[in-house]
Amino acid sequence: MTRIPGLTTFLASSVRRLTRATSVCSQRKLLVTRDLGPDTMSLLYAREDLEVVTWPEDRDCERSWLLDNVPGAAGAIVMVTEKIDEEVLERAGPNLKVISTTSVGFEHVDLQGLYRRKIRLGYTPDVLNNAVADVAVMLALMAGRLADQGVTLVKEGKWPAHNFGPFHFVGPQLSPVPSISTTRTVGFLGFGRIAQATLARLAAFGVTHCIYSTNPSSPHDRERDAALAEQLKLRAVARVDLDTLARDSDVLILLAPGGAATRHVIDEAFLRKMGSRAVLVNVARGTLVDSDALAKALREGWIWGAAVDVVEGEPQVGADHPLVREPRCVVVPHIGSATFETRLGMVRTAATNALAGLDEVDMPAELDVAARLARLTPRV
Amino acid sequence: MTRIPGLTTFLASSVRRLTRATSVCSQRKLLVTRDLGPDTMSLLYAREDLEVVTWPEDRDCERSWLLDNVPGAAGAIVMVTEKIDEEVLERAGPNLKVISTTSVGFEHVDLQGLYRRKIRLGYTPDVLNNAVADVAVMLALMAGRLADQGVTLVKEGKWPAHNFGPFHFVGPQLSPVPSISTTRTVGFLGFGRIAQATLARLAAFGVTHCIYSTNPSSPHDRERDAALAEQLKLRAVARVDLDTLARDSDVLILLAPGGAATRHVIDEAFLRKMGSRAVLVNVARGTLVDSDALAKALREGWIWGAAVDVVEGEPQVGADHPLVREPRCVVVPHIGSATFETRLGMVRTAATNALAGLDEVDMPAELDVAARLARLTPRV
Repeated sequence: MTRIPGLTTFLASSVRRLTRATSVCSQRKLLVTRDLGPDTMSLLYAREDLEVVTWPEDRDCERSWLLDNVPGAAGAIVMVTEKIDEEVLERAGPNLKVISTTSVGFEHVDLQGLYRRKIRLGYTPDVLNNAVADVAVMLALMAGRLADQGVTLVKEGKWPAHNFGPFHFVGPQLSPVPSISTTRTVGFLGFGRIAQATLARLAAFGVTHCIYSTNPSSPHDRERDAALAEQLKLRAVARVDLDTLARDSDVLILLAPGGAATRHVIDEAFLRKMGSRAVLVNVARGTLVDSDALAKALREGWIWGAAVDVVEGEPQVGADHPLVREPRCVVVPHIGSATFETRLGMVRTAATNALAGLDEVDMPAELDVAARLARLTPRV
Repeated sequence: MTRIPGLTTFLASSVRRLTRATSVCSQRKLLVTRDLGPDTMSLLYAREDLEVVTWPEDRDCERSWLLDNVPGAAGAIVMVTEKIDEEVLERAGPNLKVISTTSVGFEHVDLQGLYRRKIRLGYTPDVLNNAVADVAVMLALMAGRLADQGVTLVKEGKWPAHNFGPFHFVGPQLSPVPSISTTRTVGFLGFGRIAQATLARLAAFGVTHCIYSTNPSSPHDRERDAALAEQLKLRAVARVDLDTLARDSDVLILLAPGGAATRHVIDEAFLRKMGSRAVLVNVARGTLVDSDALAKALREGWIWGAAVDVVEGEPQVGADHPLVREPRCVVVPHIGSATFETRLGMVRTAATNALAGLDEVDMPAELDVAARLARLTPRV
């Protein structure tokens, strides 16, 4: 007998779908815009009361498929790549109770539209904090230590002719050197949980001072800062204005939310205030940085180097993008949360959020949409 | 008047050399095989009793220049790139009192030759510990998180077409993820000061266990290990055999000395015992690793990835080297100590070591050559 690879699986899956289709009248529809892996999909399939409709391909879900399949859905598990806007919500109709996004960000979701329709929003904060903090430290080191130039030099076969000299191919050091440099200051734009997780790592490198700037309307938690300084054995944790942040950071790590309020906060004026051996890391949102200004700052040596996991306009960032062309800029394709463990944690949270939304119980991680909208109301 | 750039400097320097040459009879010669930078050279020039003879070019010192200039020298400050062998020592003659190498390693120096002639050896340990520990962490993260593949993908203009999927482009995570992966084990081959500095950094990432293997003849310092575990809040710090080290390390960092005793300790048999999501980092000596075996391990997926700052036979490592051609291997050109601060510390230490050797006083960092030779004597 000729065996056709995958045929059994295909048939079994067809039978399962057929079976589900016949019982559709008693089932609520859960739309899933990406295969979440066997462990997590089995959580969803185990629910007899749900018709699980999943985008079948191993690539970003097409908008047309989403629009065709969302009508009548009671819930949807989506990725950061799907825009959940008025059109999608309108098409979905009145059954829709919950959107569960497999991301910590929710810029792709129309919060006003959700609020008006009383649709709940699940997201995946915290589970990715460690993964992003790891990448923040990696990028800070890569930018300072000329990692990409080193890799490129070797790949181009230039190591044999590369001379050793005490000050050849050197960069600024993240950790202090006794008797040479005794203080190292890390700055944060935004000082939430990922920033604090990053700070905990950097403290172990011997960083001595932490400064941060955050939303001016948020309360200044001096007790928290003092506790952090004591716990991490830092000489100071201090909230500062943007001028001080630019001037005093040896390493500046961006971990602020995106959106109109923070767009291009890192602009030419800010970058001109930074030190010539300072390093800039963006692991938050591309919109925080004026890419042209940063490329200019690197080209003209206002700062030492930069490393970014996010770029404004991504993923439409080609080989000719000014930051990609800049040797002193490391650009990686938004890999902050890209680990087996974190992504497994994210899809599990997204699935349990969605099920909790459908069951009208507490979600593991629900965004308070009303409170968020109140915070987003422009201040005069 | 026509100005010739650099002429004034050239003339001033010629006058200085001439002046020094006239007083040569009362001076001892200090050979310096590389410009150590203005701060440190001025320490040497300040000594009226010394004739400082410096390799004048901004590239590796030529052997012929070294042989031509070493006769009669009382001291020499050298780089890791200069082989200080029987020929050099013989040429130098009986005036030679001190070799001061600007490195922590001394494989390039003939210790037997020094011992026979009672020539002291200065080196630069410790000052570079933090710089190397920083790079060890950077490389561990780069290998796990596919940093070079990410940079390459972006440079090749492939980000726009790069699909987001929960398990696309993911790697093993250095830090744990609550409820998913609760233990992370770092292994060290060699457990000296740089390894312990690296461990202190990794503990802040949430690493839970440390295992290490070291020279079997060295005493097992259980008290030190218990103190480290308590101080760094690790569940255990344990000395283990090589099999356990291979099997249980999520991240394995090589920080053992080079030489015949440790050559190719990381071979095919060792690599086959490692885990398929394990990461190997070499920041010590290239000879520790059988490069062909490592390339095979990466190609065939025995381990997840590797990142090396050192390669056997470096710097003769071309673009066609098996590790350079392997996408899962990050190769950087021996940048472990390459920071402004550390290199400044190293050249200062080398200069003060040399002066102390000439003055016959204690050096900041002197190798006990006799004790070292006794340790190197082959055990039966």
